[in-house]
Amino acid sequence: MTVRVGVIGTGMIGQDHIRRITHVVSGGAVTAVTDVDAARAQSAAAALTGVTVHPSGRDLIADPGVDAVLVTSWAQTHAEHVLTAIDAGKPVFCEKPLATTHADGEAIMKAEVAAGRRLVQVGFMRRYDAGYRAMKAAVDDGAIGTPLLMHCAHRNASVPPYGFTTESIISDSAIHEIDLVRWLFGEEIVSAAILKPRRSSKGSDSLHDPLIVLLETASGILVDVEVFVNATYGYDIRGEVVGEHGTVALGDHGGAVVSSIGRRSWPVPEDWRERFGRAFDAEFQDWLSALAAGAPRGPSSWDGVAATAVAEACLAALRTGERTAVALPDRPEFYGPHP
Amino acid sequence: MTVRVGVIGTGMIGQDHIRRITHVVSGGAVTAVTDVDAARAQSAAAALTGVTVHPSGRDLIADPGVDAVLVTSWAQTHAEHVLTAIDAGKPVFCEKPLATTHADGEAIMKAEVAAGRRLVQVGFMRRYDAGYRAMKAAVDDGAIGTPLLMHCAHRNASVPPYGFTTESIISDSAIHEIDLVRWLFGEEIVSAAILKPRRSSKGSDSLHDPLIVLLETASGILVDVEVFVNATYGYDIRGEVVGEHGTVALGDHGGAVVSSIGRRSWPVPEDWRERFGRAFDAEFQDWLSALAAGAPRGPSSWDGVAATAVAEACLAALRTGERTAVALPDRPEFYGPHP
Amino acid sequence: MTVRVGVIGTGMIGQDHIRRITHVVSGGAVTAVTDVDAARAQSAAAALTGVTVHPSGRDLIADPGVDAVLVTSWAQTHAEHVLTAIDAGKPVFCEKPLATTHADGEAIMKAEVAAGRRLVQVGFMRRYDAGYRAMKAAVDDGAIGTPLLMHCAHRNASVPPYGFTTESIISDSAIHEIDLVRWLFGEEIVSAAILKPRRSSKGSDSLHDPLIVLLETASGILVDVEVFVNATYGYDIRGEVVGEHGTVALGDHGGAVVSSIGRRSWPVPEDWRERFGRAFDAEFQDWLSALAAGAPRGPSSWDGVAATAVAEACLAALRTGERTAVALPDRPEFYGPHP
Amino acid sequence: MTVRVGVIGTGMIGQDHIRRITHVVSGGAVTAVTDVDAARAQSAAAALTGVTVHPSGRDLIADPGVDAVLVTSWAQTHAEHVLTAIDAGKPVFCEKPLATTHADGEAIMKAEVAAGRRLVQVGFMRRYDAGYRAMKAAVDDGAIGTPLLMHCAHRNASVPPYGFTTESIISDSAIHEIDLVRWLFGEEIVSAAILKPRRSSKGSDSLHDPLIVLLETASGILVDVEVFVNATYGYDIRGEVVGEHGTVALGDHGGAVVSSIGRRSWPVPEDWRERFGRAFDAEFQDWLSALAAGAPRGPSSWDGVAATAVAEACLAALRTGERTAVALPDRPEFYGPHP
Repeated sequence: MTVRVGVIGTGMIGQDHIRRITHVVSGGAVTAVTDVDAARAQSAAAALTGVTVHPSGRDLIADPGVDAVLVTSWAQTHAEHVLTAIDAGKPVFCEKPLATTHADGEAIMKAEVAAGRRLVQVGFMRRYDAGYRAMKAAVDDGAIGTPLLMHCAHRNASVPPYGFTTESIISDSAIHEIDLVRWLFGEEIVSAAILKPRRSSKGSDSLHDPLIVLLETASGILVDVEVFVNATYGYDIRGEVVGEHGTVALGDHGGAVVSSIGRRSWPVPEDWRERFGRAFDAEFQDWLSALAAGAPRGPSSWDGVAATAVAEACLAALRTGERTAVALPDRPEFYGPHP
Repeated sequence: MTVRVGVIGTGMIGQDHIRRITHVVSGGAVTAVTDVDAARAQSAAAALTGVTVHPSGRDLIADPGVDAVLVTSWAQTHAEHVLTAIDAGKPVFCEKPLATTHADGEAIMKAEVAAGRRLVQVGFMRRYDAGYRAMKAAVDDGAIGTPLLMHCAHRNASVPPYGFTTESIISDSAIHEIDLVRWLFGEEIVSAAILKPRRSSKGSDSLHDPLIVLLETASGILVDVEVFVNATYGYDIRGEVVGEHGTVALGDHGGAVVSSIGRRSWPVPEDWRERFGRAFDAEFQDWLSALAAGAPRGPSSWDGVAATAVAEACLAALRTGERTAVALPDRPEFYGPHP
Repeated sequence: MTVRVGVIGTGMIGQDHIRRITHVVSGGAVTAVTDVDAARAQSAAAALTGVTVHPSGRDLIADPGVDAVLVTSWAQTHAEHVLTAIDAGKPVFCEKPLATTHADGEAIMKAEVAAGRRLVQVGFMRRYDAGYRAMKAAVDDGAIGTPLLMHCAHRNASVPPYGFTTESIISDSAIHEIDLVRWLFGEEIVSAAILKPRRSSKGSDSLHDPLIVLLETASGILVDVEVFVNATYGYDIRGEVVGEHGTVALGDHGGAVVSSIGRRSWPVPEDWRERFGRAFDAEFQDWLSALAAGAPRGPSSWDGVAATAVAEACLAALRTGERTAVALPDRPEFYGPHP
Repeated sequence: MTVRVGVIGTGMIGQDHIRRITHVVSGGAVTAVTDVDAARAQSAAAALTGVTVHPSGRDLIADPGVDAVLVTSWAQTHAEHVLTAIDAGKPVFCEKPLATTHADGEAIMKAEVAAGRRLVQVGFMRRYDAGYRAMKAAVDDGAIGTPLLMHCAHRNASVPPYGFTTESIISDSAIHEIDLVRWLFGEEIVSAAILKPRRSSKGSDSLHDPLIVLLETASGILVDVEVFVNATYGYDIRGEVVGEHGTVALGDHGGAVVSSIGRRSWPVPEDWRERFGRAFDAEFQDWLSALAAGAPRGPSSWDGVAATAVAEACLAALRTGERTAVALPDRPEFYGPHP
């Protein structure tokens, strides 16, 4: 069975996922696109065959030739498209964030619960990374004992000089570790704090980069996340969980090791596409295979809502300088016992 | 465009590739199968939808619902199926070996040249491994200078106690390094020799395991390959090219690094499926994408014939204890200037 | 020239240094010992030749056959012996802590300044570790740009169940990172805070282990130190400095890499003796060579006093839960411009 | 007890060992020197105190202020000095080679046997390297099962353009692996062969560099040694022993790991002084400590003679292109059962 996917938003990410569904993974085909920039939608469609260009997300979702919806539009429009898809009873994959307000997040959960079945999947691709999966396996199988704390580093070579604010360090970057921590330990994050190391001179003047984000889980696991978005030298993602009798760390990806002029070295990825390309592939393969089997099984609406609540606590902590409790909404039983 | 693939031979490898085409990569669908064991063919078909079961390879190849043929049957039958596919003008992917006799190899090349276009691809998947591709990039871009020699190790945890002979160490295992060396350096192998280290007691009594295979290329690059098929501890593939001013080595795959009870460690793969699974995926994705674009671009009939000729020199060296020149057939211009 | 060393305190550390001076490094000889446990002093002397056993530190220091004094006695007695040695105009090496009260620390500095020449060296051996020296070289030569933050982990396999308190995690363990940070960045630490991750069940009930110690330097470099004294799996010391355009991390010590039963691994040291044995050797070689050349050049009285002041800020932060400013005494010009 | 050492030959190596005995290790003092270049001997003595300059090795050995002799003179004179020292009943440490002719080697063993006690130690410092010792421990304790084969690489950044011949690759470089293999496996090498990879253009025209040296031990362990003396990029020593159920490899020395401009890297040593400096220190510490306890326990005259015999087989194999049996002299029982 081929899942016919309609794509709302044909910017860079949308185009990358269209390529992925068309040329990389199995079981899906893009049959409809739309974008606020109609020319961009036309251009995305022109590269494929048999793709309808729609004037709006609403029209695309209503298209009987669309089995499932992919939302890669501007963040402020995510909730509206997701709600429309739920109303139409169609599965919808939404890139982060699921919603930008509490009201929207709760509305999505309410609608999905009312629909009585999982329809929404949120785009937290790290859960599909082989390294993190091996790490979770080591945590789950007791190889390191009860987890006590975790160290993370999230470094981008650079971010655009305009538009990327200190807040974006939380909402665009640290959001990935926020979801990861919930998933890795199977419990919620209850508080957040922010530390400000010496500022790098590399970014824009208004940017405080790097930051240390501190997250505490319900059982007391303390996670420190260095987020450094103008690290210059590459895209470098690290993590180590420390347990009662051992630790597990992400391995280095490696690639080929070159010995030359006095040094032995291997490459650090250039960007997230290089580092997480295979995770994105696995994420979409899983989504399409799960749809073929009935319903999505990846990160849920609850995961999207919870991650946003933690990010908001981080933003409050950034403003106040204080450790801030996470204000989680009530969790619908529908979403089961674990993050 | 979906390439409709007919599969000849539904044993373990055939089934794995059926899964790959159906559930992992994009652009292909299995529409027909056949096997000497009809029940096994039926069972493979039953797991899918819309698949015709044929009584013979000949019938399958003739099926108008088959665009391209995958040969994963018993080695002795490969040449016959490949020749039939060429006659039918259909692209054919053949697992190694392409042929088991000189006559068959030459017949295949002759038929393909007569057809006037590339139809055949041989299953040397290591060319699609990310580690080897990074190694080749380092060799090609001059990062290590003119290559002078190469060290390889090819270790299997174990092989079946019956049926796997000392000759199989060459034809089933070292054959991969043989192709790799030709591809990596873009030149032919001109001689081979075999050294016998102390014998492991782990395999059957008639097996001399491990062996050291020595290969020399046209420009004098010397390659030593340790092949150890009952290495017990895991499936471990290593390689380092030494050039005039540097070296490049396969990185360790890594995965998660665990610190526990006095040691820091990471996993060695269990078997070739784990180590080269992604290379197989990339190989089939490339084959299907290339077919959609017109013709295969992976390892050619010539590559299959040349690898077999080198393996035969190795087998002669194993029998005689002497360094043996490779007897390459004439290379049709059709196959271009490089291996 | 052989430096004749008198050793005050012949417990475990004292005996190890006696062995080092006698059998490992060049240029020194132990000629006198004393200990509150006279039998222990006798026993230490009996293993050597030509060693006088003194009834007290005061007598030992007065011995004309003693050129330099090594203080490895109980912490509460350090200051008294150091002051006596200064009065006698004899160089003195004092294991940490230099003093346990502000008054004592200031008295030592005052006495040394009055003496008009460096006499005191404090036992911060990490400054002599090859890994840390390579790290400092990378920081100093600009390889990573301006340093912004640092991550450290300090893990012991275990500590004794009695006598080692949560406060000891600061004063006995983190004290090493405190000195290291001052030395590495050439600036003082201005504030400290403590975070409490989930508690390990491995230690005594009254122990809160692990802790995260946060240190901020004068220029704003933020250092997080995980101190975990019952980490079980080994003695594991890590560090990574993050700069504006790169990072430098301690390498893994390595030793031999074993591939066995599905894993590739190398040893984590058992304890600090294994990990820092060569650093201790280098420290004593440097001390003896420097004395032969005139005066010690290792960590000074000021370094001892400043480290204690930071440790006190950490202990206050542990009690109050608040970020605490370090109350540094005035720095005598005598000790130069840098930590 | 301080061992008073007389040094014959104050060239680069001699001076380095004088520094080591004087400033690095414990228990020795240089009290006499001599050199064919009298001015050089004077200059070496002038840097120390209480050192007698002798006109000849014979005079130095006769000096009652000399307890033990260190021979670091020109290779052709080694045997003469060693024999004189044995005659004088004084322990003698001789840098490789112990002798340059069979007759000399046998004469030394005969004299030592006649003396009835170990007097001679040969300078194979790799036996004192921490990495190799960890490797030997893994071999000896069964961690990898019965050893079957070994891979080595011995790379120098460069050698002088004049004076270093293809034969020197054997006698000056591979000689270290020859001794190492005998020691590591506790058995003799029975045959040798040489393979010639493509020649590097970096060295002199008459040099065939790199070579592959193949060594076979009595039990059939096969060792391949890449010796590459103009490898350009650094001094790189590797080794991996492959056993029946695992392997053990030299770790990478590590030092600090720098992440910068797209790569993660660590240093390769510049030369053997950097790589094996600590092994030399440990070698001399062991020699001096052993002498203080009675007699040397490091590599013996037999080890020197046996290594030379293997090197000669290698040189014959280089000339003839044939695998060559090692012609070992009879082993005196005096030297015990193992290499």
